[in-house]
Amino acid sequence: MSPRVLVTGAGGFIGRHTLAPLLAAGFEVHAVTSRPLRDEYPMLLVPPDDAPRVLAPEVRWHRADLLAPGAAATLVAEVEPTHLLHMAWYTQPGAYWSALENFDWVYASLQLLRAFGERGGRRAVLAGTCWEYAWEDHTHCVEDASPAGPSTRMRPATLYGAAKHSLHLVAESWAAQTGVALAWGRIFYVYGPYEHPARLASGVARALVRGEEVPCTHGMQVRDYLYTPELGGAFATLLASEVTGPVNMASGEPVRVADLVCAIAAAAGRPELVRLGALPQRPGEPERLTADVERLREEVGWNPSIGLAEGTARTVAWWRQALAAEAVPALEATR
Amino acid sequence: MSPRVLVTGAGGFIGRHTLAPLLAAGFEVHAVTSRPLRDEYPMLLVPPDDAPRVLAPEVRWHRADLLAPGAAATLVAEVEPTHLLHMAWYTQPGAYWSALENFDWVYASLQLLRAFGERGGRRAVLAGTCWEYAWEDHTHCVEDASPAGPSTRMRPATLYGAAKHSLHLVAESWAAQTGVALAWGRIFYVYGPYEHPARLASGVARALVRGEEVPCTHGMQVRDYLYTPELGGAFATLLASEVTGPVNMASGEPVRVADLVCAIAAAAGRPELVRLGALPQRPGEPERLTADVERLREEVGWNPSIGLAEGTARTVAWWRQALAAEAVPALEATR
Repeated sequence: MSPRVLVTGAGGFIGRHTLAPLLAAGFEVHAVTSRPLRDEYPMLLVPPDDAPRVLAPEVRWHRADLLAPGAAATLVAEVEPTHLLHMAWYTQPGAYWSALENFDWVYASLQLLRAFGERGGRRAVLAGTCWEYAWEDHTHCVEDASPAGPSTRMRPATLYGAAKHSLHLVAESWAAQTGVALAWGRIFYVYGPYEHPARLASGVARALVRGEEVPCTHGMQVRDYLYTPELGGAFATLLASEVTGPVNMASGEPVRVADLVCAIAAAAGRPELVRLGALPQRPGEPERLTADVERLREEVGWNPSIGLAEGTARTVAWWRQALAAEAVPALEATR
Repeated sequence: MSPRVLVTGAGGFIGRHTLAPLLAAGFEVHAVTSRPLRDEYPMLLVPPDDAPRVLAPEVRWHRADLLAPGAAATLVAEVEPTHLLHMAWYTQPGAYWSALENFDWVYASLQLLRAFGERGGRRAVLAGTCWEYAWEDHTHCVEDASPAGPSTRMRPATLYGAAKHSLHLVAESWAAQTGVALAWGRIFYVYGPYEHPARLASGVARALVRGEEVPCTHGMQVRDYLYTPELGGAFATLLASEVTGPVNMASGEPVRVADLVCAIAAAAGRPELVRLGALPQRPGEPERLTADVERLREEVGWNPSIGLAEGTARTVAWWRQALAAEAVPALEATR
């Protein structure tokens, strides 16, 4: 019998990219979204070459609000998953760093784990964040479990990072006592299709496709950016592996934010619309926030295959198609 | 107008000892318990010299189950506290290290903080634990905020420790963004009146007062023990101070567990009933787990005044009186 995975946040801009790789890895895939299932249609607009992957008819969709009391238990009892990939969280751009909804998601996640364990679940992968690490001027993030140590200090600077890290602590402790194999995939910076246009890469791509000017910060800060369909594949590989503990889910190829913006501009053919330095830098954030990827590459055995030029080209192509199909209002309304 | 404190877990074996010191410090004290208020009577049995302190009629009691949805918000709206002392948690002896109720208390505590902040609360002190620190063979626990640094690594070995530490992380982050002053008092080992007899000191005291043999481990492990009425005073002092961040709430005078047992035996006049080495050591626990108390002594300005001989004598006296009054079944049933 195939292993059966329950994917939460499966309609989200990262979760949706895990579905096709999970099918390819041999999982029976049960995808959960809190949105009405019919509303998935406009969200599924993709460039033709990506469409069959995302629209995979083998995926079984479930609708559930994991914040509702008892919802997780009901869902888990219905699906009886052997594996769990928990991507759902509160992600409203501009709000999620400090929103009290982070409290609710810590609890909802614990309830989900509890139900999963009680129903015989064997392996769970949960989405963590690079914002669990302490912010120094130059933070190169090394996981506690990494042979590349010494590990980076954990001291989240945001409520979002604190909530995620607190879930990790409790989940690891719970896993140790129940025998569930648990890995914690720390997401760094991402770009790609379906990202909300209030986020950097998506906002730049949309504006340039529309022919609008793009005011930016100086862009000298260095980050690890990964193309979201690649990240989906990395999560599927992690789930199919036997690796436990924290794993940085990143490209290992840090870039200046200005380089990302310029790659998008080149893909859109509108470099003259980019205004680097027009916006002030957000205070408090580190100059460099990069990922050590030894665990991901050596232990999980996953490597990225799509570089910045190709990833940004695909992102721009997606925006051209989305804007042409007028599918974007649905994206903005629901994300 | 006096500052007004809401004390949760106020019927518990630590919480109850905070009430008199809080009154003495000038607080209007609102005490919360989940038990029927009439059941407080047998719980309030104390030796005559302690009775007026605990039975202080100025304390206003409220009954609430903080795990019930909306209970914290209702309570906070009713009391409108300026200060919060949050001592409530799941503490069933033998179960609380690994119980899933720890999940519920993380969430209930966050809901309480949220309500407290929304109603204009200014300062909160929450109960943490020494089990948030990593267990090495010899762990001398130094808080992250202590000038006595370097600080001890945080890596809870139990689900209870992980849940408490996760609450601390999220609570600190929430406090930083809301402006509520928050301190986190890490409790070490305690003994004293009202402790459940399934716990070490209470079990030994009860058995010796009854004239029963007491099988113990070898007792060579070193711990920081504090007399619970002293701990109550330390929490009241911390709440009345302006100190924020983690604070070890401990005597700073570590003893071997065998010394604690022998002190109780001496107080009970029955040293011949103690059987050190009759029980195996619990595996995995550190040989030494001690507290650095520089923050508590220098910044909070609190020092212990009751030593082991006097504390154990009072504990034994309490057990004599409790057993004579047959009040113990109520203690065991509700704790």
